[in-house]
Amino acid sequence: MSELTRKAEKLDAGDELAAKRAEFVLDGPEGAVYLDGNSLGALPVAVPGRVADVVGRQWGEMRIRSWTESGWWTAPERIGDRIAPLVGAAAGQIVVGDSTSVNVFKALVGAVRLAQETDAGRDEILVDATTFPTDGYIAGSAARMTGCTLRPVEPSEVPGALGERTAAVLLNHVDYRTGRLHDLPALTAAVRAAGAYAVWDLCHSAGALPVGLDAHGVDLAVGCTYKYLNGGPGSPAYLYVRADLQNRFDSPLPGWNSHAEPFGMRSEYAPAEGAVRGRVGTPDILSMLALEAALEVWDGVTVDAVRAKSLALTDFFLECVGEYVPEGRVECLTPLPHAERGSQVALRCADAGPVMGRLIERGVVGDFRHPDVLRFGFTPLYVGFADVERAARVLAEELG
Amino acid sequence: MSELTRKAEKLDAGDELAAKRAEFVLDGPEGAVYLDGNSLGALPVAVPGRVADVVGRQWGEMRIRSWTESGWWTAPERIGDRIAPLVGAAAGQIVVGDSTSVNVFKALVGAVRLAQETDAGRDEILVDATTFPTDGYIAGSAARMTGCTLRPVEPSEVPGALGERTAAVLLNHVDYRTGRLHDLPALTAAVRAAGAYAVWDLCHSAGALPVGLDAHGVDLAVGCTYKYLNGGPGSPAYLYVRADLQNRFDSPLPGWNSHAEPFGMRSEYAPAEGAVRGRVGTPDILSMLALEAALEVWDGVTVDAVRAKSLALTDFFLECVGEYVPEGRVECLTPLPHAERGSQVALRCADAGPVMGRLIERGVVGDFRHPDVLRFGFTPLYVGFADVERAARVLAEELG
Repeated sequence: MSELTRKAEKLDAGDELAAKRAEFVLDGPEGAVYLDGNSLGALPVAVPGRVADVVGRQWGEMRIRSWTESGWWTAPERIGDRIAPLVGAAAGQIVVGDSTSVNVFKALVGAVRLAQETDAGRDEILVDATTFPTDGYIAGSAARMTGCTLRPVEPSEVPGALGERTAAVLLNHVDYRTGRLHDLPALTAAVRAAGAYAVWDLCHSAGALPVGLDAHGVDLAVGCTYKYLNGGPGSPAYLYVRADLQNRFDSPLPGWNSHAEPFGMRSEYAPAEGAVRGRVGTPDILSMLALEAALEVWDGVTVDAVRAKSLALTDFFLECVGEYVPEGRVECLTPLPHAERGSQVALRCADAGPVMGRLIERGVVGDFRHPDVLRFGFTPLYVGFADVERAARVLAEELG
Repeated sequence: MSELTRKAEKLDAGDELAAKRAEFVLDGPEGAVYLDGNSLGALPVAVPGRVADVVGRQWGEMRIRSWTESGWWTAPERIGDRIAPLVGAAAGQIVVGDSTSVNVFKALVGAVRLAQETDAGRDEILVDATTFPTDGYIAGSAARMTGCTLRPVEPSEVPGALGERTAAVLLNHVDYRTGRLHDLPALTAAVRAAGAYAVWDLCHSAGALPVGLDAHGVDLAVGCTYKYLNGGPGSPAYLYVRADLQNRFDSPLPGWNSHAEPFGMRSEYAPAEGAVRGRVGTPDILSMLALEAALEVWDGVTVDAVRAKSLALTDFFLECVGEYVPEGRVECLTPLPHAERGSQVALRCADAGPVMGRLIERGVVGDFRHPDVLRFGFTPLYVGFADVERAARVLAEELG
């Protein structure tokens, strides 16, 4: 037994989240080392039974009555309140529904309108130049449809780029490619000090590390639920609108679900108060309630404990890679300082595509990001230290 | 046994679709007369097993590999092609995803842009004045964000309201309240003759009667899948863009799923060709594949047979109501001519709310639309003539 194997055993023995692993399904043909939870979280054990009940009893037997009697109608806000503590938000500010892309559109157009309400001259949107592409595409549409210009800026250069014309700034909390954690408190403060509105994309941070939306005065935020929140493939995303902005939030997608009186069937639109204003159409109940069941794994877990384990996992992975992989064979794109690191490690090597293919064949599942990035995500609720050591060992073998 | 009971028996005996009823779950506490399939379709028997497989095996065991190996990634177009024949569309023109409201936004903004591409002076959107409210609200946002004015018009008055300024017209194929079927061929022809673009909302017609999108030259269309298509609560909606318009379709929601090369992770947006261009974010797989299973009930069924039975059902319901309910107690809002009737019957009475409450208690499930409408939907795949007779009889008893 190698020294790192022994260290892994010791770390696993002291892991206060170790018991959570049993709340996930982790067998199947792929083997046990699943380091792709930052793309699709593993299946929580509670989900299949819940979904079967939603389909068979709530839909099959109760049918239309379930909209009221099974709590379908209020699910978007109820589940939003379940996510809220994971991102540092008080209740009543998050609504679940639609895809992340659609929520970016709502949030960014909403942010521009908030800015222009008091200063019509604000006509520029800043967007993270290294963003996951969909945010940039949607930001382009939001800019076009609100008469703004779009300016891509590296997150670290945002403070210097802010000005009197800035209406809104769209940033990623963690970079999807490198795993770099951006400084949400400082960047939010800079955006607000400039009189603009900050929209944060939490896809790669929610469920992996503390976000502190309320504490840091974030204006609007969006995130998906199928990565570290384990909601299932394409599960609905969420929108956060800070409480004191909600009654000024002017959605570009004012569907009937966001009406003050949705069953009044009025021809004039009158927006609801509160988080409900972020709703659009009929909520997607099957996926929504699968997500609700998936969120039960957070019972008794603190985000601080998750963050501590996440850093221990990525530290240990980097240590194992440093020990096992010949120097210079891979380049680490993920920052080493804890304050700049999310819950993934990205390694660059020219043959990343074929290397990842071989890793997956051997039961170590990460993913490949074009053109040359090996991406490994560490979900503290179900990844252990022995997994990490094995992944690094297999990686070293495949890198040859 | 009354004459109408005997007639119901005879009609049921001659019903070529009668065997389809066994493909749905129709028991449970509500009893067997479910006339609310125009709000939420009943559960097809094939769905629970399929969903269990998607959750347990595809997500639980195969996880991320299912995006390619379980056909998740291509589901929006594949299921669109499954819906296509039900609305008279050739393959390659329908994509499934998002809510109806979001698709109305895509279609209407897309239609305005198509019109303005060749004539920038077209700056008016006509919208069905009797529309289901969300279409009107979203049309208001589409108008605001494209610099158009919005003008509500009764569908019958659309031809007279069209002009050189008309960019797009948003119409409902069947009125959600009255069940009136609008003249899609004639109205589409009028819109096109005026140089404008027609967007049809098929929520209350798809799966109940022939639509003929291709045959009648419809430009764009949207619809939900949880009514006559039985996809489940809040199941994803769809967008139709006619083949020859697809490469000019300019979506206001250009998410990464509509990119020509979605995994290229490029910062510049380049739209995909074909129906894929209507996609936005990551597709909602659980609900999407439940819908796919639900669509299997259409195997061996023609929409013409469904329409014939639908008209026979509503004719018979009106006959039974005429026989059982005292004259003047209710007013029928649904047109009597077949050419103007969808697959529902709307009856107005001052105490519609409490009356529907009592009907539901007695196992006859329709719904109530504010302020005074009793709405009964007839889904030909699972509603029989004995159901219809019983519903009318119970209604008469409760109307007193």
